[in-house]
Amino acid sequence: MPASEAIRHALLIDLDGVVYQSGHLVEGALEALDWIRARQVPHLFVTNTTSRPRASLLEKFEELGFSARPDEVMTPVVAANQWLAEHRVHKVALFVPAETQRDFGGIEAVAVDQDAAVEAIIVGDLGDAWDFKLLNRAFQFLMQEPQPRLIALGMTRYWRGRNGLQLDVAPFVKALEHAADCEAVVVGKPAPAFFEASLAILGVSAGQALMIGDDIVGDVGAAQRCGIRGIQVRTGKFRESDLDGEIKPFALLDSIAGLPAWWERELEPGS
Amino acid sequence: MPASEAIRHALLIDLDGVVYQSGHLVEGALEALDWIRARQVPHLFVTNTTSRPRASLLEKFEELGFSARPDEVMTPVVAANQWLAEHRVHKVALFVPAETQRDFGGIEAVAVDQDAAVEAIIVGDLGDAWDFKLLNRAFQFLMQEPQPRLIALGMTRYWRGRNGLQLDVAPFVKALEHAADCEAVVVGKPAPAFFEASLAILGVSAGQALMIGDDIVGDVGAAQRCGIRGIQVRTGKFRESDLDGEIKPFALLDSIAGLPAWWERELEPGS
Repeated sequence: MPASEAIRHALLIDLDGVVYQSGHLVEGALEALDWIRARQVPHLFVTNTTSRPRASLLEKFEELGFSARPDEVMTPVVAANQWLAEHRVHKVALFVPAETQRDFGGIEAVAVDQDAAVEAIIVGDLGDAWDFKLLNRAFQFLMQEPQPRLIALGMTRYWRGRNGLQLDVAPFVKALEHAADCEAVVVGKPAPAFFEASLAILGVSAGQALMIGDDIVGDVGAAQRCGIRGIQVRTGKFRESDLDGEIKPFALLDSIAGLPAWWERELEPGS
Repeated sequence: MPASEAIRHALLIDLDGVVYQSGHLVEGALEALDWIRARQVPHLFVTNTTSRPRASLLEKFEELGFSARPDEVMTPVVAANQWLAEHRVHKVALFVPAETQRDFGGIEAVAVDQDAAVEAIIVGDLGDAWDFKLLNRAFQFLMQEPQPRLIALGMTRYWRGRNGLQLDVAPFVKALEHAADCEAVVVGKPAPAFFEASLAILGVSAGQALMIGDDIVGDVGAAQRCGIRGIQVRTGKFRESDLDGEIKPFALLDSIAGLPAWWERELEPGS
């Protein structure tokens, strides 16, 4: 398909659980990505990963055997920096991994054990660095008057790691919302603003786009609420009981490896 | 007032933040309790404290300088044991302090790091014993199929300790509910069943009862939803902004010390 032809469909691609899982590429993922690029399907990797900065995310891809340009990757940290600039927020407390703190360059971050007034606290996936003391500090910041805003880097509930299912950022955000009686600003999946910003980057409409993900709620359901068709894969955190709920994916694939054949058969036959 | 006279009013008394705070009796609390007993007001101490067993709670009262009989104290553990018996649940995982585990005598508790099927997990206030690993284990139990029930020993959001506001059990329950997509059975405040069981113990109707507490949501609001008038005290976790919300206490006192005078003036004048 020559690049000058009208764009028919674009693709948003979740990474963890779709392209790789437990530190390894999903079988056939590389070939599927090669196909997407060769066919010049407009695409964006949309990930809620906040456990490492974007630069180190790209390094990780290289180790896994594929490469991506920074502007091919949309993360909640990118969206958070946009939000902070728009709302002129300058003083925050960061509850994100030390490495990711680098990606918050233009703002003043107070130490989390410091008793200083802040305008917002930013909460990412701290994984097993979470303990009572740290979560309680986040809570104490939120009980300042006036109350700082709570910014959530995504609302992923859990992911599948080497030791089974692991809590992600959302449960900790829910804990803080309930304790401090506030509502988080979500700057990652499943927030509609995150999908809309991704569509704007690609320059396509919701009706032209598809989202491929392993999270029936955070990927498929959230995309479909924005009018983006969702493709559910059976890799990553997927469980068969995910299909018993209200969310009905537009398509169901065993893995991303099946995407090219499905695309050519069901979505763009005869092209 | 002779004991033979008809009961006019009964009193449910929150402990932490009302009778004591930060390990000390609230000034005048002892005199107020003496007045309640001398006047033979039917009363029950209703507490969500699950950080220690009932026996040790009574010992703590003695140290503080007042005494209570076991049957004067209603706790979520008492209610939880009732629930487990009613629902014939025998195998559980306990996320409660080691001391409190003693109060769950009649059931089989599997070790929390053991990969065994359970019918319910019971979550109490573990305070700074919470860390990622422990919360994640609770989550992993809840992801078993069939899904075990999540039993919450109360839904207190936070309390005021020596180091400022401290997260209580509710934020951790909310985290688990969201992660595992389930709804907890709450067997303490603010669950209506807990207040109704307390009224039944006292043998009074909701209209005859008053609840004195420091938590505008968990004590005052929850009681008033059951038709029990709520008395808010300005001690414990109280903050002036608590009065800006939708919950309007029946009465507002600086502390429990003001209860006898208020009671004789506003509630039972001329008695």
